[in-house]
Amino acid sequence: MHPLRQTIDAVVPIDPGAMAQAREHQDRLTKPRGSLGVLEDVAVRLAGIAGACPPPLPTPVALAVFAADHGVHAQGVSPWPQEVTAQMVANFTAGGAVANAFAAQVGASLTVVDVGVASDLPPAPGLLSRKVAYGTADLSEGPAMTGEQAAEALAAGVRVAADLVASGNRCLVTGDMGIANTTASAALISVFTGRDAAAVTGRGTGVDDAMYHHKIDVVQRALRVNGLEGAVPEGPEAAVRALAAVGGLEHAAIAGFVLGAAAARVPVILDGVIAGSAALAAAAIAPDAIGYCVAGHRSAEPGHAVALAHLGLRPLVDLELRLGEGTGGLLAHPIVTAAARVMHDVATFDSAGVADKDA
Amino acid sequence: MHPLRQTIDAVVPIDPGAMAQAREHQDRLTKPRGSLGVLEDVAVRLAGIAGACPPPLPTPVALAVFAADHGVHAQGVSPWPQEVTAQMVANFTAGGAVANAFAAQVGASLTVVDVGVASDLPPAPGLLSRKVAYGTADLSEGPAMTGEQAAEALAAGVRVAADLVASGNRCLVTGDMGIANTTASAALISVFTGRDAAAVTGRGTGVDDAMYHHKIDVVQRALRVNGLEGAVPEGPEAAVRALAAVGGLEHAAIAGFVLGAAAARVPVILDGVIAGSAALAAAAIAPDAIGYCVAGHRSAEPGHAVALAHLGLRPLVDLELRLGEGTGGLLAHPIVTAAARVMHDVATFDSAGVADKDA
Repeated sequence: MHPLRQTIDAVVPIDPGAMAQAREHQDRLTKPRGSLGVLEDVAVRLAGIAGACPPPLPTPVALAVFAADHGVHAQGVSPWPQEVTAQMVANFTAGGAVANAFAAQVGASLTVVDVGVASDLPPAPGLLSRKVAYGTADLSEGPAMTGEQAAEALAAGVRVAADLVASGNRCLVTGDMGIANTTASAALISVFTGRDAAAVTGRGTGVDDAMYHHKIDVVQRALRVNGLEGAVPEGPEAAVRALAAVGGLEHAAIAGFVLGAAAARVPVILDGVIAGSAALAAAAIAPDAIGYCVAGHRSAEPGHAVALAHLGLRPLVDLELRLGEGTGGLLAHPIVTAAARVMHDVATFDSAGVADKDA
Repeated sequence: MHPLRQTIDAVVPIDPGAMAQAREHQDRLTKPRGSLGVLEDVAVRLAGIAGACPPPLPTPVALAVFAADHGVHAQGVSPWPQEVTAQMVANFTAGGAVANAFAAQVGASLTVVDVGVASDLPPAPGLLSRKVAYGTADLSEGPAMTGEQAAEALAAGVRVAADLVASGNRCLVTGDMGIANTTASAALISVFTGRDAAAVTGRGTGVDDAMYHHKIDVVQRALRVNGLEGAVPEGPEAAVRALAAVGGLEHAAIAGFVLGAAAARVPVILDGVIAGSAALAAAAIAPDAIGYCVAGHRSAEPGHAVALAHLGLRPLVDLELRLGEGTGGLLAHPIVTAAARVMHDVATFDSAGVADKDA
């Protein structure tokens, strides 16, 4: 049996009955029909996820930041030293990162999950040690992970989602930290969408022209070396193989986190390009999982728009963020909550005595 | 002396020194430079508004919904009966509108200001009576307001802003309610930007094809009848004259509200197309006032994008809302607060011991 079989089997399509009910309810509320635009779609999706109308408010909310290092860093694809991954984990647990400020702003808890940082991290409050390896191997020279490592990271993500839901959270947000992880994201997006490396590779967190062209070469080499040019992987086995070949440990964990949220029927807000590429893998493993995803934002990385289009997700925030950590996902949470709150709080034309032009 | 002279004189440019300090501070924080995209610009603007770095958090926050009726409703430019304005005021004070749900979500207070509803409204908690007239005259047949009425509505808006700031609010949000008010908005946008009526007129809250073309005709007639074709009004006198000719009482009040916020050096989040058109009038009266504005969202109305471009404002939320009431402005408030919070909470590279690629 596939190690993810139980999780995959638990991922059922979101509920069309609750969604139809939500659409009908929207049309009775004291506002012109359709006037809440994209928020109406969000509310309908939340109803489908919960299998209930009105859907529960997506609170409490928990951000999980999956941290890991990347062998491909040795190829010079990032201007940042690899040590910054571990330094930023310390910054998260000390409360000093932007993700901490945004989590405080929206009332989210923040858990950091070490699935593959290249050094040993001292214990700290809010830090879970689920280390699968001390970073991945260099994806431009062969598989980044073994199949076992990818499966272990996926399982870690599933488990973190399940635990956060078990402790009462009603919405999850993906976060990531890993110097060089936009290189792995570009490779994953190229593999799972069939688009050229050049179309999906970006400048990450500050790459100059020379490094940018080198980064595209590295992504192309990764696909070639790992035999991933051509056919787009379909089904759990091929998807996990591709994820192992060119992904990162945090990508695998986030794919598992998405599957775990879907299996628990809880909405998961995707952050940026790392989450988008991981969600492509999750979609190939269990297509119905994408129904449980809300695209928090659209990052400045070109691959992210490609991934979101492939997944059929429309981002809620579009402000040229390119930070990661879950920051874009957190910013979307009040919008998601507002969409749900409309279904609970707003009066109907009948109850409020407001004339309805279409009645 | 112009009745607005004291307010106009109090509107000073936002502080370039505090803005430069804010930009420098952003670059020391533990994140790649520029990685917060538009949020960095918002934080810099908040510093300029307050004349301080870090800028204060924009809380408490207050939404003021200015309500009024429109003589042009008689021309058949809206599918909704005029009574809905008063009915929705009752819905706001009873807590049943979408604006109430969003205000609860972001922790904003909600004040409804009757500046021109066509009927007498019973007293209600949260309702201020500042009625200037029982609706405007029909702008397609002559001036919608007398100069005195426009000045009175402007002064009412200034005063509401001043009172909300005096009672401790550190951020204001514009809201509006008035059946047929997108027609007046289109006329104002056409006048203040010099663009054709057809380019700035939209379908409001549910106009069909025939009514849409009629609405454009009505806007064109309003400009012709009021002698506003051609020259774009400049300076307080011409601006107030144009506002009186084709605006609504809530447009005038919102223009005053923007001026009042600017005079008090407090940020004001603009909602949709009604606020955008009112802000054009405010900008013509006191150009420095626009520095105090944050564009909350971009509505589905085509004129709104034209107004925002003219004002040089980039909207924070872009989700095809077309409801008004302040809903789009409220959704942006957590984003504005998050931008400010970064300046207070986030560690610097030095303090957190994180390596800086550019150090």
